Formats: sequence, C-alpha cells, structure tokens
Amino acid sequence: MSEVRKRTTVGDATSSAAASRDVSDDQKEDVESEDDAKLEVEELAKALPQGTDHTPHILSSVLSGLPDRWRNWIIRTIFTWFMIAGFCLIIYGGPLALMITTLIVQVKCFEEIINIGYAVYRIHGLPWFRSLSWYFLITSNYFFYGENLMDYFAVVINRTCAHLYTCNVCNVNNGYLRVLVTYHRFISFCLYIVGFVWFVLSLVKKYYMKQFSLFAWTHVALLIVVTQSYLIIQNIFEGLIWFIVPVSMIVINDVMAYMFGFFFGRTPLIKLSPKKTWEGFIGGGISTVILGLLMSYVMCQYRYFVCPIEYSETLGRMTMDCEPSSLFQPQEYTLPSSLQLNGKSTLTIYPFILHSLSLSIFSSVIGPFGGFFASGFKRAFKIKDFGDIIPGHGGIMDRFDCQYLMATFVNVYSLKPEQQLQLFQTLRDSLENRGMLN
Amino acid sequence: MSEVRKRTTVGDATSSAAASRDVSDDQKEDVESEDDAKLEVEELAKALPQGTDHTPHILSSVLSGLPDRWRNWIIRTIFTWFMIAGFCLIIYGGPLALMITTLIVQVKCFEEIINIGYAVYRIHGLPWFRSLSWYFLITSNYFFYGENLMDYFAVVINRTCAHLYTCNVCNVNNGYLRVLVTYHRFISFCLYIVGFVWFVLSLVKKYYMKQFSLFAWTHVALLIVVTQSYLIIQNIFEGLIWFIVPVSMIVINDVMAYMFGFFFGRTPLIKLSPKKTWEGFIGGGISTVILGLLMSYVMCQYRYFVCPIEYSETLGRMTMDCEPSSLFQPQEYTLPSSLQLNGKSTLTIYPFILHSLSLSIFSSVIGPFGGFFASGFKRAFKIKDFGDIIPGHGGIMDRFDCQYLMATFVNVYSLKPEQQLQLFQTLRDSLENRGMLN
Repeated sequence: MSEVRKRTTVGDATSSAAASRDVSDDQKEDVESEDDAKLEVEELAKALPQGTDHTPHILSSVLSGLPDRWRNWIIRTIFTWFMIAGFCLIIYGGPLALMITTLIVQVKCFEEIINIGYAVYRIHGLPWFRSLSWYFLITSNYFFYGENLMDYFAVVINRTCAHLYTCNVCNVNNGYLRVLVTYHRFISFCLYIVGFVWFVLSLVKKYYMKQFSLFAWTHVALLIVVTQSYLIIQNIFEGLIWFIVPVSMIVINDVMAYMFGFFFGRTPLIKLSPKKTWEGFIGGGISTVILGLLMSYVMCQYRYFVCPIEYSETLGRMTMDCEPSSLFQPQEYTLPSSLQLNGKSTLTIYPFILHSLSLSIFSSVIGPFGGFFASGFKRAFKIKDFGDIIPGHGGIMDRFDCQYLMATFVNVYSLKPEQQLQLFQTLRDSLENRGMLN
Repeated sequence: MSEVRKRTTVGDATSSAAASRDVSDDQKEDVESEDDAKLEVEELAKALPQGTDHTPHILSSVLSGLPDRWRNWIIRTIFTWFMIAGFCLIIYGGPLALMITTLIVQVKCFEEIINIGYAVYRIHGLPWFRSLSWYFLITSNYFFYGENLMDYFAVVINRTCAHLYTCNVCNVNNGYLRVLVTYHRFISFCLYIVGFVWFVLSLVKKYYMKQFSLFAWTHVALLIVVTQSYLIIQNIFEGLIWFIVPVSMIVINDVMAYMFGFFFGRTPLIKLSPKKTWEGFIGGGISTVILGLLMSYVMCQYRYFVCPIEYSETLGRMTMDCEPSSLFQPQEYTLPSSLQLNGKSTLTIYPFILHSLSLSIFSSVIGPFGGFFASGFKRAFKIKDFGDIIPGHGGIMDRFDCQYLMATFVNVYSLKPEQQLQLFQTLRDSLENRGMLN
C-alpha cells in the first residue's frame, strides 16, 4: 500500500471496479474462515447500496477531464457546503425545525441499517418482516418522544389544572392528554408487546435463525438510532448551543480531517480504515479545538442559543427567553503561574468555553472511533457505504455515525450534573426559606 | 406427530438420540436455505449445552425401572419443589437477599446467552472477546444498579447535609459518594466508551462479521437481562408484594401448564413449541388466576409484603414499616346488577386484588409468549436448552424466560401511574398549603 492515502470513507466515485477488486483482495485472507464468501459478496453487491456512483449528470460531464481523485474532492466539497448551508437554514428555522430534522435523519438512518440487514440475511420473501421493523421504530419513537414531551406536558397540565382547580374545564380539556401522559409507559409497553407477539406468531420454521438475527439487528438499530435521537432532542431542549456546538464540532472534525488527509496524509492511522491518516487525525483534532472554541465564544453571546426551551407561565407558551445561566456569563479565572503572560494573572471567559474545550477534545479523540466502528461494520458486511443519497458522501448514516456518540456524551456530560446541582440548590433554598437551615 | 404431547420445553432426559433425529428432520426442510447446516449442527452439538442428561446419579438409579416420560416427570417435580423452597427461603432472607439473587440470576442468564453466541459464531480463538462481554455486563450493571441506588443515596446525602449544613462533616463524609452520585451517568458513559474503543481496537480483519454479530448479540443480551433486572429491583423497592406475586404467577403458570399438559394434553397449541398444548395453556391460565388471587389476598395483610422500602429519617436507616397505602386497605365496591347475588350489592376487597387480576391475566396470556420466543430462539440455533444446571429443567434462562417480560409489565403497569398520582397530589397539597388553591 504505497499509494497516497486520504482520509475518506467514500473513495473514488467512479472506480467501483477498483472497489470490487479491493473486496476480493480482502477475501483471499478470509478464505480460511469463509469458503463461500465470494459468492455471498457478489450476491450482496447486487442487493446492497454500493455508494457514490450516483453523481448528478451535469457535474460529472463538467468534471470529466479531471483525475478521479480530484473529481471526487470537488463533488464532496460542493455537497459539504450544500449540507452546511442546509444546516444553517434549519437552525434559522428554530428548535421545532431541528427536532423534525432529527426525526427525519433518524428514520433514514434506521432505514439504511435495516436495508443492509435484509440484504445480508436475504429474507425478501418473508411475510411481515418489513412491517415489523417499522412497527418497532414507531413504537420506540412513541415511547422516547413521549418521555421527552411528557415532562413538559405534565407541567402544562398540572399548572392549568391548578389554576382551574375548582371548575371542571381542566378535566374536560386535558382529559385525553392526561391519560396519555399518566399511562405513557404502560401504553408504550402494550404497543411493544403487540409487536413482540406479532414477531413470535410470524416465525416460519425454516427461517428461525434469520428471523432472530434480524430481530436482534432491528433492536440494535433502535438502540443506536432511536435512543440517541431522544438524547439529541433533550439536548435541544436544554438550549440550542448544546445541540449546535457538538454537531458542528463533529462536522468540522470530519471536514478538516478529510482536508488534512487529502493534502498532507502519509502515515496510515488504523488498519480498519486504510484511508485514514495520522495527519488527518491530528490536523482535524487541532482545527476542531480552535474552531469549536471560536464558535462557542460567538454563540455564548446570543440568548437565542443559550436559553433552554421552557414553558412560560406568563406567556402561556414555550419560550426561549431567559436570564442566561452563570455558564454563559463572563467570569474571572485565576491562571496557574506557569500560564501567566505579561503579568496577567487572571482570565475572563465564559465558563461554557471550558466545557466547550472538553467537548472538542472528545469529538476529536473519541468521535473518530464512531467512524472506525462504522467502517468496520461496512467491511464486515462488504459494503462501501450505507446508502447513496448524498453524492460524494454516501448514505445519511455515513455522515451521522459519529454524531450519535457525541450526542450521548453531551447529554451525560453537561446536563445531568447541572440538573443535580439545581435540584440540590432548590432543596437548600426551600429549607432555608422555611428556617430549617441556618 | 401422533404421540401424546406434553407442555415442557425440556423433553425426555435420556433421549438425546431422539432429539438429534428431530434436529435432522427439521433440517430436511432447511436444505433449500442452508446447505452446510448439517455440519454446523454437529459442530454446535459438541460446543453447546444440550440440556438435561445431567441427572444426579442416585436419582437415576432409583428411577431406572420407570418409563422415560414418568422418570422425567418425577425429576422435574422434585427439582420444582426444591426451587420453590429455595425461593421461600430467599424471601425469608429479606429484600437484600432477593436483590442479590436477582443479580446472580441475571449474571447466569447472561452467561448462558453469551455462551450460545460464542458457540454459534465459533470464535474461540479471538482475543479479548470474553473479557469484552463481561466488561459490558459490569458497565451496564454499574449504570443500572447505580440509577436505582442513586435516588435513595441522593436523599440520604441531601438529608444528612441539610442537618449538618453549617459544619464540614457532611462534605468530608459524603465527598466520594456525592461525586459518584452527581457524575453517575458521566462515569458510566466513560466506562462504556472504554469498552467501545476496546472493541474497535480488537477488530481483527478476517473476523469482522463475527465480531460485529457478537457485539450485537452481547447488546441484545444486555437489553434483555440487565435492563429488566433493573426493573425487577425497582419493583422490590416498591414493596415485596410487587415482586413476589408476579414471580409466583409465572411459576404457577409454568408448573400448572406442565401438569395439565402432562395429564390432559391432546391439542397442539403452536408449531413453534410442539410440546405445548391448548389444555396446558388453558388449565395453567385458570390456575394462575385462582391461585394468584388467593396468594395476593393473603399477602395484602402483612406489612412486610406491602410496605415500600424507604429511608426512614427517624431511624436513620432503610425500613419496611408503613401505614399501608389505600391499595392494601379493604374498600367497598358496588357490584353491577348482573353480578349481584342474594341481594348483596357491594363487595369489600383489597383494591390490590383487582390489580392482581390484571397481572394474572397478563402472566397467563402474554407470559407464555416469552416462552415461545425462547423456544424459537433455541430452535433457531439448534439447541435443546440454555444450559444444564437444573436437572429436569435445563438452564437458568429456561426457567426465567417469561419472568423478564412480566417484570417489565409490573413495572410499567402499577408503579408509574401511582407515582404520577403521588407527584400530582404532593403538588396540589403544597399549593393548597400556600393558599394558592381554594
């Protein structure tokens, strides 16, 4: 492998022949463990999305004179800018637009993962299986989105009811909603049980093993895609900054690692993804930290980004206006003596910047492992990309593989301790007010 | 299949030859889809636990004169009584003993599922894989058990700190615990990420597909076993009755369905488990409702069973003493006119009895589907039982397959609405006290 490596999971757009040669190279080493792998690969190749041959006609004719490597670079860059523009547009659309986008992305990712499962286990003829997968997707979304909205609706119901306690209007208006909220988990469980019984009844003798494998496959897909989308929605509710900064960091890391790898990449990083290089990894990491901090600094100054989405009693609707929490108000930090410059012993920054530093380090060190995991998965099932919806990039899942890991990190990192502290402070204030303290 | 069917997942103890004949019968129909299945079956048969040949020596010599069918019945009955006695002993041991037992059962079930995975994918030589599975088990237990205990510890910490607010004793004593509680999810996530990175780094080229399959297998096992154990522990905290009644109902249903099937079974119930009969299903169902209600009636009268396990401020430790909630105090219900006998128009019962009725119906109608699912799983991977630890019964997982489904049902059915109501009432009381209502 003396060729110049570049950091991309996509490869050359038109060299599907080269790609399939690659696959058979891999295979020679697999002979020992899988004799009939070759036949399977060919069958799979027909059934599975094989990636990025799908380029808009006008683009491929304009770029036909260029070498493959550069043509792909241009296509990828153009579509990266399209996606960034789209992302900005959605942010401009507000939190609801973001939540709907998250839902759509989730459904597309689920579809891509499940389609690979169908192709791998070749059970096209089996009755009910597609319906069952989608049924489980709907059920688990009902559960998780409900869990998110429940807290907010519960507040709304209780408040409305508290105001109108003596009259019956509350009960009539909120009757259905209250049942849905109160019995949410029970209803979700019943829906799941229906799917479970349906699965058991749909078992057909000669397909047992494939059906169970696909059942497991569906559940792992739900675990990856749905539960983590739920965490993303939670992050949005905590304030747009908790969503936009991490997502952008992963995007920056992806793009910059590709750029550094493309221009300077020499040293292979990991066997699993031969096109990734140390140059891309390090260049991407440093860019992520710098651009991430810069971005956080700018966003800290706008209430639109830092305020959580909450129910306002005075306005009677959800709002994004608040007195920014202490995280987003400049504070003075004393520098350790080794870092003091020009006799300046203090530094005034937004405390969020420090969190932002952890986030950017996570996204540049651990984030890529999400990508390696996805690469390994693709190699395990001999596919090039998860789909072919974005020219130069592959499927939706190819671009969101690291986002899910990041979302979970953000969720557990920043929100829970804050909430715990808040709970503790509320309790303390309450005790103090009642004279039970001091 | 004209032989008398009996409702058991175990089959005859000594007829492993018959069992393997059965497997090859199955196989003729599988030829179309799996050519090399025969070889695999033989290999698997060597690697996997094949069930109940394992009978204590003394028993098999005493029973040697009996027909297989009866010998197995006697062995199964004896060990059923042993297990029931053991269960009673553990209940006598109190909630901590029950929680520890739940943990042990969970670990054994996980081990059995994972062992099947290893055998199915034949990856004995792969480095790290056993360690990784166990690491994920420990990590997820740390997370879920922590989530359970956190609520209780958080109360303890906050209360202790509130009392001792002015001095520093609180901070010193609770320092470590507080960090563990406050950052619990973050710590759990970091532990998980270590496992995730470890998995990615352990990927070996020719085993990709098997490694990913086993990764999925491990996660589905965790989903089934660990998350549901967590719900069981929650049920125990709500009061022993919420644990003992459902567990006993599943046991009653299993035992009585086996008995009815053994003596009266004629009509096959479902293709998936040819030994299950409609007679067993119906007889087991009716017995479960009757015995379940009887049992609930008796247990409702003891505080030991109905009181939740809570932290007592006056005693400074966890207690199980309380004024029983309204669920466990006799109430008068007006009967619909069609049900009135001898002019009696009311019925005085514990409200819990009504919940108990729903639980018993669930455990006799939906519960068996847990068993069918497990049967299908065993057939998919051509194994007879999950293990051979209990003579006449198979593995631990063979006896607990339905328990997990039931635990989730109990958890979502009875606890959440109660808690919601409690929250609502607390809010209302608080508002009323402050003069904001009425």
